[in-house]
Amino acid sequence: MSNHHDHSHYTEGIMFADDRSVDPAVVEMLHKAKKEHIETIHDRYAQQLPQCGFGDLGICCRNCLQGPCRVNPFGEPKEGICGADADLIVARNLLRTIVGGASSHVDHSYMAIHCLKEAALGKADYEIKGAAKIKTVAAKLGIPYEGRPDNEVAAEIADVAFADFGNTTSEPMRWLTATAPQERVDKWAELGILPTNPDREVRVAMHQTTMGVDGSPVNLLLSSLKAGLVDGYGGLQMGTDVQDILFGIPEPVKSEANLGVLSSDKVNIVVHGHMPEISEKIVEWSKKLEGEAIAVGAAGIQLAGICCSGNEILMRQGVPLAGNYLSQELAIITGAVELMVVDVQCFMPSITKVASCYHTKVVTTTPIGQLPDAEHFPFTPDTADEKAAAIVRMAIANYANRDPRKVQIPAYRCEAWGGFSVESIVGALSALDAEQPLKPLVDNIVAGNVFGAVGVVGCNNVKIRQDYQTVEMIKHLLANNVLVVATGCTAIALAKYGFMTPEGAEMYAGDGLKAVLTAVGEAAGLGAPLPPVLHMGSCVDNSRIGDLLGALAGYLGVSIADLPVAASAPELQHEKAVSIGTWAVALGVLTHCGVVPPILGSPLVTKVLTDDVEGLVGGKFFVELDPIKSADIMLEHIAAKRKALGI
Amino acid sequence: MSNHHDHSHYTEGIMFADDRSVDPAVVEMLHKAKKEHIETIHDRYAQQLPQCGFGDLGICCRNCLQGPCRVNPFGEPKEGICGADADLIVARNLLRTIVGGASSHVDHSYMAIHCLKEAALGKADYEIKGAAKIKTVAAKLGIPYEGRPDNEVAAEIADVAFADFGNTTSEPMRWLTATAPQERVDKWAELGILPTNPDREVRVAMHQTTMGVDGSPVNLLLSSLKAGLVDGYGGLQMGTDVQDILFGIPEPVKSEANLGVLSSDKVNIVVHGHMPEISEKIVEWSKKLEGEAIAVGAAGIQLAGICCSGNEILMRQGVPLAGNYLSQELAIITGAVELMVVDVQCFMPSITKVASCYHTKVVTTTPIGQLPDAEHFPFTPDTADEKAAAIVRMAIANYANRDPRKVQIPAYRCEAWGGFSVESIVGALSALDAEQPLKPLVDNIVAGNVFGAVGVVGCNNVKIRQDYQTVEMIKHLLANNVLVVATGCTAIALAKYGFMTPEGAEMYAGDGLKAVLTAVGEAAGLGAPLPPVLHMGSCVDNSRIGDLLGALAGYLGVSIADLPVAASAPELQHEKAVSIGTWAVALGVLTHCGVVPPILGSPLVTKVLTDDVEGLVGGKFFVELDPIKSADIMLEHIAAKRKALGI
Repeated sequence: MSNHHDHSHYTEGIMFADDRSVDPAVVEMLHKAKKEHIETIHDRYAQQLPQCGFGDLGICCRNCLQGPCRVNPFGEPKEGICGADADLIVARNLLRTIVGGASSHVDHSYMAIHCLKEAALGKADYEIKGAAKIKTVAAKLGIPYEGRPDNEVAAEIADVAFADFGNTTSEPMRWLTATAPQERVDKWAELGILPTNPDREVRVAMHQTTMGVDGSPVNLLLSSLKAGLVDGYGGLQMGTDVQDILFGIPEPVKSEANLGVLSSDKVNIVVHGHMPEISEKIVEWSKKLEGEAIAVGAAGIQLAGICCSGNEILMRQGVPLAGNYLSQELAIITGAVELMVVDVQCFMPSITKVASCYHTKVVTTTPIGQLPDAEHFPFTPDTADEKAAAIVRMAIANYANRDPRKVQIPAYRCEAWGGFSVESIVGALSALDAEQPLKPLVDNIVAGNVFGAVGVVGCNNVKIRQDYQTVEMIKHLLANNVLVVATGCTAIALAKYGFMTPEGAEMYAGDGLKAVLTAVGEAAGLGAPLPPVLHMGSCVDNSRIGDLLGALAGYLGVSIADLPVAASAPELQHEKAVSIGTWAVALGVLTHCGVVPPILGSPLVTKVLTDDVEGLVGGKFFVELDPIKSADIMLEHIAAKRKALGI
Repeated sequence: MSNHHDHSHYTEGIMFADDRSVDPAVVEMLHKAKKEHIETIHDRYAQQLPQCGFGDLGICCRNCLQGPCRVNPFGEPKEGICGADADLIVARNLLRTIVGGASSHVDHSYMAIHCLKEAALGKADYEIKGAAKIKTVAAKLGIPYEGRPDNEVAAEIADVAFADFGNTTSEPMRWLTATAPQERVDKWAELGILPTNPDREVRVAMHQTTMGVDGSPVNLLLSSLKAGLVDGYGGLQMGTDVQDILFGIPEPVKSEANLGVLSSDKVNIVVHGHMPEISEKIVEWSKKLEGEAIAVGAAGIQLAGICCSGNEILMRQGVPLAGNYLSQELAIITGAVELMVVDVQCFMPSITKVASCYHTKVVTTTPIGQLPDAEHFPFTPDTADEKAAAIVRMAIANYANRDPRKVQIPAYRCEAWGGFSVESIVGALSALDAEQPLKPLVDNIVAGNVFGAVGVVGCNNVKIRQDYQTVEMIKHLLANNVLVVATGCTAIALAKYGFMTPEGAEMYAGDGLKAVLTAVGEAAGLGAPLPPVLHMGSCVDNSRIGDLLGALAGYLGVSIADLPVAASAPELQHEKAVSIGTWAVALGVLTHCGVVPPILGSPLVTKVLTDDVEGLVGGKFFVELDPIKSADIMLEHIAAKRKALGI
């Protein structure tokens, strides 16, 4: 297969670069790609059009070898071969999608627990850096920690996490009951959707969705909510807690974002994927081996992140971000990347093909995330140093192969602050009220200076213009004094346009919000306003948003479902985004999808998820592709919640 | 939606009943269905034609919200949006299919373990009946049993099973290493495909197949083999062992098969699904409450089974079989069924719709297997008696509602022997040689009286004529002196046509085989030959075939891969059939598929599964739709294996 692009594939309207992204660096690289005949995801998307309408509506079933079946949304057939109708087919497919997402996060979290356990036992190349988090997590789990060595407590925390995976009883996950608000736990218990053991729930859901098991769409939707909680507590919460113990709690840090962070005279290493176990070690060895880079004539080593591996090392190490999901091929197309190291999730199989057009090496690092044309360095906790050093050295050795004629680094980079863990937000607020740090925030919400808050999360999706919905929606929310927190590729989007700078408060925030950000920033000694969008981390770090909501609800003595808040995944793409969104809904949050999920083929599923489910858990989904309308719906919702709270 | 059939849906060529099944009872009922305008699976199949070619070839991907994507087997596009090509898309889809199957069996086995544990603790409505199996399983697991109460040992066995589900180490599943031949364990270890914890492997595989994780089709295929072992040992082996402990080891038993087993003057209850916990209790309470049936004017209670719930109670209780998968709607269409009780797997969502045309009640019994228009009686180990009694009483009460004008029970029923566990086969053989019971069988294989053995398993699939491939293929194998063992819906197919009677030996077996069957049958005191096809049980009971192969290989001191045997799923349909087949291949067995699995879109996956994998594990798949050719390929394979063994 040729790496070069056959122009007959182009749909000009689609490929016109300005239509594909609002990011000028991306547009520049798309033009470079076109000039060099490099095929990108946008070309492959054009080649896929028109996409299958049955799949798009969720009414295609391939769950047995009698199929594939598809039902007709406008007439006959209304049922697949086994008799499953559109509602059943959509509900089964949705549950499998959520299980795919939840499994991804649970597996991520499991690898972190394994690493923590080994580190606590002194068998790993990792030191435990998050002493403060050990105490808070131990306290939540009811593990004694006073007077005990950190490693001993950390090992017990890992054991408690593992115990959830060994739970063969009907008791709910301990990590969930220890970390979720009691009001939510009671609600979920009442609905029968409390997960027991994350892995068991995955297996049961896969069974439930095979041919001839569950014929009840409503029952399947309840299982979907449960699978959302599997992600929320067996994936996000457990993952973030454990990673903070291993690598430390993030603190505010200044960095930069966009492709312009790549260096014209340094060895550029791009980390891409999701696991900080790997990206942290690359950071460490890039520092240690910088001398070797200089010895080969480079000015040093420049690290840059893509997707959540990038977010993790931005949050804790201040490493700049090269871009989000849709920029991964383009980083290589700069011609300036010596090596891209990937771990799990969201790295496209295409990257090796793009890399083959340049000198770029691609390195895979996990047994389940391999690429046929990449170098494979499988990380284990006890070989992480050896592997990371070898990878960094491979990048250094490859610097000599960079072809300057192919190098074009877009001159776009933007200051971006990261590191806004709940702990650091509370820390900043405690400069205003050390006793009750949430009081100043809540008082400002009550006073209307802060109208409400929105968490904006998720991916890019090639179906829509990169960063466009995110940026326009957030501008509108900020202008209306909504405080925004962000994670994942959406956070990277906002990082690229100044939303994560103190100046962003001036540029984007309404007067009330601006005053609050300024007061907090100055009290906290930043010498500037807080950024109007707080970068809270990776996708897994969505648990931080959950923690913040839980803390606010707890302070006010209400349910999360009563708070003047909303969530949005304006450019969702991955199965993980669907499972995260489902968790958010189960938490009681109105959750926006900016891309239509494959459920519209079922009137029942659509109605339950966008309407009826609110009566069960307080949250629901809404789908809206227009950024201003999306923001307006969230503003209305926040207004209604404010009114209900009497503020 | 109407329950009545709109004739415009008919594709006459397809709907012509004789083309749909070789079973005259089925043909008669299809004519009745047509006359009464009842839509069946055959009508729905006709309405689905032509089926989507992309799905059929496995080259449709819906694993993220950028899709659906499909690649063109004949040209462009060759890649999905992320860059996944046909090989990658097919490999990912296949792994998810196998995970669906493995999860089903693992969940089945898990429910049985739970029931065993509760029963052993005296907290369940079940007595432990398989004392002999407790000893053999305990011995394999290294659990002391001499002088200990059965319940205590049984509880420890359940704990060991649960411990596999709590395994957070890299050690392989204990149930696997304790029950699989060491030569196979070593081989699987060498390939890195030994599963650790069944549930963990399911979660990892789901993660591995999400967008942007594994880009290596070969790596995914290795994970597929591993998932096959998850099914084989966390599903089949564990499930059968535990069920034998709970309900006893099957012994040869005479019964009958086909729709004619339904009674014109008794209360007819059909059990359908897979879990003996439920079907055994229905048997028990049907006996206990027979007087109540007589009191309402019925001649008693007639139980009949469909799919593997039927096989389970045939094997242990001699309850007759009403039919296999494609007969489930037709049992209701007889108009004579008071109640159909289902548990998990293979019951079509259509059955409530068909039942609504008659007086038939449908009852669901598990939380994950519900139907909107059925009565729901969720079984738990401690409420099984109460639920079973209520279900049987519901059937009895419904007898009065039977409309004689709608009743037409086909006059087809056939004697069928079941109950051929490994223990009962060895028991029969030990009548010839008490010291070395396998010796007479092996001697006859060496002498050529028994040419080899084939295990025939799996489902029905509406794409092909019911029972046709199975029957014609088996006739050809038996005529060539191949001993056949059968499970699942395929066993039910063969039960309907006399293959499971002593007379079947006369009708179908070649001279050599006939002589051996006669000698064994007479020595064992049956007063007749053994049937030429031995019914070894349900799908889960495929582990019995694995045990038999392991015992033969052990006796001969060779690998299972060296034995003159083959496996076949002539009418596979369910994801479970794909995972079972993968386990069989991993065991080293040539495995026939009589329906094309959705892999042909990938030349790589097709080649690996039908060729290269043999070099890794000794087994491989072949796909052949013609029954005689299928049998001939197996005969050639057996001949080659005989030659290699020097016999």
